[in-house]
Amino acid sequence: VKIAVDAMGGDAAPRAVVEGAHRAVSEDRRELLLVGDRVVIEDELARLDPLPIPIEIVHSGEVVGMDEPAVTPLRRKRGASVRVCAELVKAERARAMVTAGNTGAAMAAAVVVMGTLEGVDRPALAAVVPTIPGGRCVLLDVGANVSTKARHLRQFAVMGHFYAQEVLGTPRPRVGLLSVGEEEGKGNELTREVYRVLESTGLNFLGNVEGHDVFNGEADVVVCDGFVGNVVLKSSEALARMILEELHDELAVSFRTRIGARLALPALARLRDRTDPDQYGAAPLLGVQGGCFIGHGSSSAEGIRNAIRAAAGFCQARVDEKIRQKVEEMHREEEALLWGEMHE
Amino acid sequence: VKIAVDAMGGDAAPRAVVEGAHRAVSEDRRELLLVGDRVVIEDELARLDPLPIPIEIVHSGEVVGMDEPAVTPLRRKRGASVRVCAELVKAERARAMVTAGNTGAAMAAAVVVMGTLEGVDRPALAAVVPTIPGGRCVLLDVGANVSTKARHLRQFAVMGHFYAQEVLGTPRPRVGLLSVGEEEGKGNELTREVYRVLESTGLNFLGNVEGHDVFNGEADVVVCDGFVGNVVLKSSEALARMILEELHDELAVSFRTRIGARLALPALARLRDRTDPDQYGAAPLLGVQGGCFIGHGSSSAEGIRNAIRAAAGFCQARVDEKIRQKVEEMHREEEALLWGEMHE
Repeated sequence: VKIAVDAMGGDAAPRAVVEGAHRAVSEDRRELLLVGDRVVIEDELARLDPLPIPIEIVHSGEVVGMDEPAVTPLRRKRGASVRVCAELVKAERARAMVTAGNTGAAMAAAVVVMGTLEGVDRPALAAVVPTIPGGRCVLLDVGANVSTKARHLRQFAVMGHFYAQEVLGTPRPRVGLLSVGEEEGKGNELTREVYRVLESTGLNFLGNVEGHDVFNGEADVVVCDGFVGNVVLKSSEALARMILEELHDELAVSFRTRIGARLALPALARLRDRTDPDQYGAAPLLGVQGGCFIGHGSSSAEGIRNAIRAAAGFCQARVDEKIRQKVEEMHREEEALLWGEMHE
Repeated sequence: VKIAVDAMGGDAAPRAVVEGAHRAVSEDRRELLLVGDRVVIEDELARLDPLPIPIEIVHSGEVVGMDEPAVTPLRRKRGASVRVCAELVKAERARAMVTAGNTGAAMAAAVVVMGTLEGVDRPALAAVVPTIPGGRCVLLDVGANVSTKARHLRQFAVMGHFYAQEVLGTPRPRVGLLSVGEEEGKGNELTREVYRVLESTGLNFLGNVEGHDVFNGEADVVVCDGFVGNVVLKSSEALARMILEELHDELAVSFRTRIGARLALPALARLRDRTDPDQYGAAPLLGVQGGCFIGHGSSSAEGIRNAIRAAAGFCQARVDEKIRQKVEEMHREEEALLWGEMHE
């Protein structure tokens, strides 16, 4: 399977992206299409060791800036690298795309160009977050979708289920519905409705879970609307950063001697790794035809390489096809139920 | 000002609460009413040093358990300690109440017995969270109120403003509206409507803020609906706990020698203090007549003492009265506007 990588997206692009792609090819033997300014990419590649298999470059002269509106690749910059990546997936020259650029623009390009899966109403952006017992939890939607309906959340549950099972390797993922109390009657109007529709999906449905369950390892998939997910993800990232910064300062006070600091810093580095978005991977946009992985704007070369690895796993397991089948099956069951009710 | 303290509420009650009350009297010279089983409280006090000023005990034979429904003090246990606290405020024998018991039950007792402030549609539970530059941010509502309307959020903004200004001492608090993008048009239906009504309050309104702004020091007050606030607060608490636990393990690996651990642990302890709910204080329920402070179920004696300190600051500054005046003023302005429109 080939993966299209947006060489121009992200704060450290193109250097970090090209370097990450280089590692994915040389160390993981991935087949890539590197999309962006050909001259710039060739210059960056020339700085690195020669590759055992060549990287194909697909030229694109335009880039969507991090602060440009999400519609930019659909209107003003139809030749932008992020859109070209989506076009390559649409044309089946690649099975998935990876970008660390403007999240809104990447979502717009993927949804409009690659298209949503048959039966899926709305794609969802999923975040993979670390949990206390050393595991991972798929939180979705974090993509700032608003006015979510119960049937959307049911589809998000299916998407999260297959992502956890097929890409993260979680057997029979436990799926929770994010709410403000664990009892069925708790929550807002939306979560009370979703509770009922999730019980009949055949997924390993835990019922309502609360904010702490995102990180405590009690759930493998947590489903919520895009407003709530986005706020939870951004606040947690800021909090983790805050704690690690303070810790750095605190340790500096404790260890006035070099030897102490030399002992403490590796501990801090390991902790930083566990809470570092570069390590736990890019966010998959689920529910589109093909794969779309969106890394943090600040993705390092290693972050890009990890995103490519996740994309390859997604393609090999054909997660999109599994989501499509399950969603179709749910639609058929609903129709049968409706038909039955009409003829009772 | 006298403060009524629920001696029976919380996982470590009555011991931790009585000890915290004892410190508040002996070290901070607070005047307290300690509410709960008289014999039990007297036994606990007998274990401690004699006090310079006596603590008045108000007997109550019933307790609301941590897992009982929120309506318990309104229906089945009308003599519960948490309700007696609220009755003491209602009867003006105390100016505020402090409890570390069942949050839902405390909110129900305070709202129903003490009553909401004139003009306030709905009280809000506020959390005071630590921020990166060493400051604090008031996040409200975190009380799991659902189906919030724009006028509720506007009142929450006023409540948060006065709490930050009068109790935390923040001059001209910057008030942000929690959303998924900073531009005015971003967010869900509710936040778009609130944006407009917040601009005309005369508060120091920042506009929309995002999840990371809860912790990065960019805002002093962050307003959101109770579903979102509750989820953000609970997920952050779990994340902070996770990071500190991992850090403890990581440091244990790094420092095999006792001397290293002895240097590292104070750094960890200081960090834990900054992120410890016991330190940054109990959650004030704003919008009720009088003060109501609800501590974590796991509040230690020091946590209770800090909650009593916050309650005393709240009473001295007459925060409830300031909120009532401002809300009334906003209502008058609205009426004048409406009158003007009708006669144009």
